Amino acid sequence: MNRRVILSSRPKGVPQAKHFSIDEAPVPDLAEGEFLIRNAYWSADPAQRGWANDAPNYLPPVAIGDPMRGFAVGKVIESRNPDYAEGDAVTGMFGWQTHAVSNGENVDRKVTETDLPLSLALGVLGLNGITAYFCLLEVCAPKAGETVVVSTAAGAVGSAVGQIAKIKGCRTVGITGSDEKAELCRQRFGYDLAINYKTENVAKAIKAACPDGVDCYFDNTSGPISDAVMANLAKGARIAICGTAAIQDWDPLPQGPRVHRQLLVARARMQGFIAFDYQARFPEALSQLADWVREGKLSYNEHVLDGLAAAPGAIAMLYRGENTGKLVIRVD
Amino acid sequence: MNRRVILSSRPKGVPQAKHFSIDEAPVPDLAEGEFLIRNAYWSADPAQRGWANDAPNYLPPVAIGDPMRGFAVGKVIESRNPDYAEGDAVTGMFGWQTHAVSNGENVDRKVTETDLPLSLALGVLGLNGITAYFCLLEVCAPKAGETVVVSTAAGAVGSAVGQIAKIKGCRTVGITGSDEKAELCRQRFGYDLAINYKTENVAKAIKAACPDGVDCYFDNTSGPISDAVMANLAKGARIAICGTAAIQDWDPLPQGPRVHRQLLVARARMQGFIAFDYQARFPEALSQLADWVREGKLSYNEHVLDGLAAAPGAIAMLYRGENTGKLVIRVD
Repeated sequence: MNRRVILSSRPKGVPQAKHFSIDEAPVPDLAEGEFLIRNAYWSADPAQRGWANDAPNYLPPVAIGDPMRGFAVGKVIESRNPDYAEGDAVTGMFGWQTHAVSNGENVDRKVTETDLPLSLALGVLGLNGITAYFCLLEVCAPKAGETVVVSTAAGAVGSAVGQIAKIKGCRTVGITGSDEKAELCRQRFGYDLAINYKTENVAKAIKAACPDGVDCYFDNTSGPISDAVMANLAKGARIAICGTAAIQDWDPLPQGPRVHRQLLVARARMQGFIAFDYQARFPEALSQLADWVREGKLSYNEHVLDGLAAAPGAIAMLYRGENTGKLVIRVD
Repeated sequence: MNRRVILSSRPKGVPQAKHFSIDEAPVPDLAEGEFLIRNAYWSADPAQRGWANDAPNYLPPVAIGDPMRGFAVGKVIESRNPDYAEGDAVTGMFGWQTHAVSNGENVDRKVTETDLPLSLALGVLGLNGITAYFCLLEVCAPKAGETVVVSTAAGAVGSAVGQIAKIKGCRTVGITGSDEKAELCRQRFGYDLAINYKTENVAKAIKAACPDGVDCYFDNTSGPISDAVMANLAKGARIAICGTAAIQDWDPLPQGPRVHRQLLVARARMQGFIAFDYQARFPEALSQLADWVREGKLSYNEHVLDGLAAAPGAIAMLYRGENTGKLVIRVD
């Protein structure tokens, strides 16, 4: 049987455990060209909030009664497709279900780094690492010696951003939500400085940490933390809008301080980023990221929830900032 | 005697006539290397609001008791500098005074388009035209066939932006503040469509005018008009923040709808612009702009206030949107 995490009602804002139910359905027979994947890990991602809501987005919303859309990694256990053999490891948009039938269209890639753990395909060798790589290097475009500020600095994307910025010769300042995470930022992810936004005045702390201003800001929050960083821009600053974790609901648009004059005075640039736009270049990023992992230059942290019953509460847990590292669900 | 428009008290927000006084002072003797300019026209510019306020800016504030900082054009009437001869036309930051002593440092350029009116050096062949040229072509970077939306579309900068966008093969939509100005936009400045923001719902009008979304938005306002445009971005949109005419006061920062998710979903870019950053390339722009004027491709509109007594109220008049075209003061 295929056990599935179903979106059973429409959330407004962050999906909570109550918006999901778990059911069982027969595993469908395979048609010619199809293959069956047994998922090993599901990913829990901030983007799932947008997919669960019925609001304008870059993908249509998940229908009520459908398995929750989500990334997964697993192995092919049966195949009627010559390109996929039993035993192949694959990652893609397989949804929150134990078994997924695919014709290959929703496969992101075969996982070929067989020397590294399979679950990394959902994190540092998945969309998180790819997002960190392209959003930092293409949108922020940091130069050696510049100061790079990262929000959600200890998270799955942020921790990779900070380390890639260090690899590129930048000074890094991380913003995170606890003293433990701040310590993790400094000790494990190599940040030069880390700020705990729950106990410090972020605007003052950023001003002290960045006396010449912020050259690059990698923003995963879009809320009051960003407002504090925006008050400290260096001339020519680049702000990448990668995520909006601080905002629970975008309908109607929440109010915040207008950024126009800050952008004008600093001749700064604020730009939105979606990783899928770089799909043709994913292999370049994955090859580089895997090499950095093997060389010990790129650390990662996983937070594993054990068993599919933990999945319904996972997105809300992300938005409460309770995870330490990339949040995945081990599919039992 | 040198008649001067003095900043006599510090405004908060838009400088009004009451913040200025007019005085007379002796014209200083010239030292070696200096020359004396008799101003013919002063420019009234939105940027003067920022210069008059004691707030962080890209130039220090004008000191109380000093002549108001401002652009002017005039002729050299006496010279002890071999590079400037009596009769040379010059434009630069000569201030709101009849007579300015210069050593050349505050001269932007000698005006060499002697076939065209002298006052154009303050408008379409001055910082307004230069701003339109670089901010549109470098920050918005429009491609032929794209839709370009311009706020303050009939103004000194906006009218040039709309026409340059048409020259580059774009579709242009202007936003302006009266039916007369909307008519001017369509008839004189070649806009495909013009919206009167005082009588129309701008968000709906933009949506109707731009069914495929706004590719480029040249923003001179930074207020509710911009919020309406931001709700209609095309994928990959570029928003140039050139001016902030809709906001009376930036201290404290005014609230408005957060732009982060709109930028993210559209992968759009919002960027501040200051013309001085392109100073090395001004000759390129001026030569092209003068050619377009001569070829009849670039129309301009001047609003001339007659006599220096009109200067103290000129900046407030700009912010009330009462000028029709580039606002200059003829210095009597």
